[in-house]
Amino acid sequence: MTKPNSLPGVLIASGAWDPEPWAAPFRPEEPARPIRIWPDVPDPESIHYVLAWKSPAEVFANLPNLKAVFSLGAGVDHIIGVAGLPDVPIVRVVDPDLTTRMTEWVVLQVLLHHRHHLAYARQQAAHLWKDIRQPVASAVRVGIMGFGALGQASADILSRIGFQVAGWSRTAKQADGIETFHGEAGLTPFLNRTDILVVLLPLTPETRGILNRRLFAELARDGVLGGPILINGGRGGLQVGADILSALDDGTLIAASLDVFEPEPLPADSPFWGRPNVIITPHVAASSEASVLADGIHRHILAFEAGKPLANLVDRQRQY
Amino acid sequence: MTKPNSLPGVLIASGAWDPEPWAAPFRPEEPARPIRIWPDVPDPESIHYVLAWKSPAEVFANLPNLKAVFSLGAGVDHIIGVAGLPDVPIVRVVDPDLTTRMTEWVVLQVLLHHRHHLAYARQQAAHLWKDIRQPVASAVRVGIMGFGALGQASADILSRIGFQVAGWSRTAKQADGIETFHGEAGLTPFLNRTDILVVLLPLTPETRGILNRRLFAELARDGVLGGPILINGGRGGLQVGADILSALDDGTLIAASLDVFEPEPLPADSPFWGRPNVIITPHVAASSEASVLADGIHRHILAFEAGKPLANLVDRQRQY
Repeated sequence: MTKPNSLPGVLIASGAWDPEPWAAPFRPEEPARPIRIWPDVPDPESIHYVLAWKSPAEVFANLPNLKAVFSLGAGVDHIIGVAGLPDVPIVRVVDPDLTTRMTEWVVLQVLLHHRHHLAYARQQAAHLWKDIRQPVASAVRVGIMGFGALGQASADILSRIGFQVAGWSRTAKQADGIETFHGEAGLTPFLNRTDILVVLLPLTPETRGILNRRLFAELARDGVLGGPILINGGRGGLQVGADILSALDDGTLIAASLDVFEPEPLPADSPFWGRPNVIITPHVAASSEASVLADGIHRHILAFEAGKPLANLVDRQRQY
Repeated sequence: MTKPNSLPGVLIASGAWDPEPWAAPFRPEEPARPIRIWPDVPDPESIHYVLAWKSPAEVFANLPNLKAVFSLGAGVDHIIGVAGLPDVPIVRVVDPDLTTRMTEWVVLQVLLHHRHHLAYARQQAAHLWKDIRQPVASAVRVGIMGFGALGQASADILSRIGFQVAGWSRTAKQADGIETFHGEAGLTPFLNRTDILVVLLPLTPETRGILNRRLFAELARDGVLGGPILINGGRGGLQVGADILSALDDGTLIAASLDVFEPEPLPADSPFWGRPNVIITPHVAASSEASVLADGIHRHILAFEAGKPLANLVDRQRQY
């Protein structure tokens, strides 16, 4: 039971991340709101909200008044499988800051490959001045797999630059000027027309291991880039690592940009590090900037307490 | 004098470039139009148009019926200084293909620096998984110097990604959602607010050597990137090479992307090649794709012959 004159409490269980920036927006404005940092929860009955990142199951036990769980990152695979997770709404973070960061990363990776950056970097190292035949963006087909807020924002910029952009999602979606495909039936035609595959899928039992040889073999082989390119900014669990390596070996893929792996950190002896046609970033495509996202979660809770419905709810059935 | 029943002739003087793609659009449709490839001009009186790239002065001598000169690239510094150039209109190439290509290059270079690509590439070489603090685009101020068709197209995309974009030009210009500065008086305030300077200026006596220590010292030093960055996709003659190197040495600049040099090719023993914070591309930012641009010039000539005024004329006074 909440004490009289006090606001519903917040429990921050941010895993390995510093909890302070997540607590900061609540403190100055709301001295009456209990803010607890896991595992220090003297008054579990006061907790209405958990701000969670890779939190253990114990976090959610014995919170009789829990109303909602807020994920601190865009993906919710870290929370959806927690045993005994109470049946309360799970809120995904959707924030312009996160969307901008992912768009930056996706556009950069597409342009890096499209503009032969790795080859030019090798030429620079050899002091070699030599141009490489360059198709224009409008001759290149980018396919974005996972067509939610992040995918659509990336698609918009890539399409404005001039690329032929299509999106694929589980359920039908529409976007201005972007060709869309959906579901099982839409996957093969989507892959068949794609030169550069950008993956922003959530990790669910359905999508685990989806980036495998069978899928790569369906990508376009008649494109102007000489073969298909994989860009994964989603989750490492989507990938079959050995399949990516063998696809790179035999030309089923000609290059890749990978921000995610399983496990992370990528072990120092992984063969991925040394591949000349692979660009690796250490899971930084769209890092949660705590100070910005925490403000958004704070506003979200205030709106909910003022009677507005929670937004960006996770569907437990589809697991994202 | 043009022979009866024949169309005005075209002389192609494309320097080191293969003339054939430039001649191609005229031939199948217009057998009556004389198409000559320099230096083979048996009927100089038939020539109304010269398609020129780094053409010697002799090309333009003894063409009594010359009506216009078409530059085969966006810059016209290759032609404007030719001694004895007849007093006919000079047409600059403005083509969506060229604009897209330059936008691709500019957006790529801005994102490469913004997203710490060089540092991540070094970490990849060392098999090191480690994130680097990443500001979001909206915290970074890009300034585009030279705000014509190419600069405005780049500004539009960078601004949609989220960067704070401003443009500087010799004369006042406006663009939706982009702060603009102009002239001598506008230069210092423009540089003072700029973290990443993108240069797309034409090369004229006024702009030669403009990228020097004095200008670099005026760039913002309070930005989130740790210091100013130079991106030059214009002309090598804009640069004082020694000043760029010394500015990189003492932190007046923290990084650069350079597509152009004087002379080109950049000599194999140039110190630029080995600089770890310099990205070099071999004058490929927006290469003229002959097959596409030639179509545009062909249509331009047909429109002119149908009575329309020539577009994209060079001002000989300002030299671009």
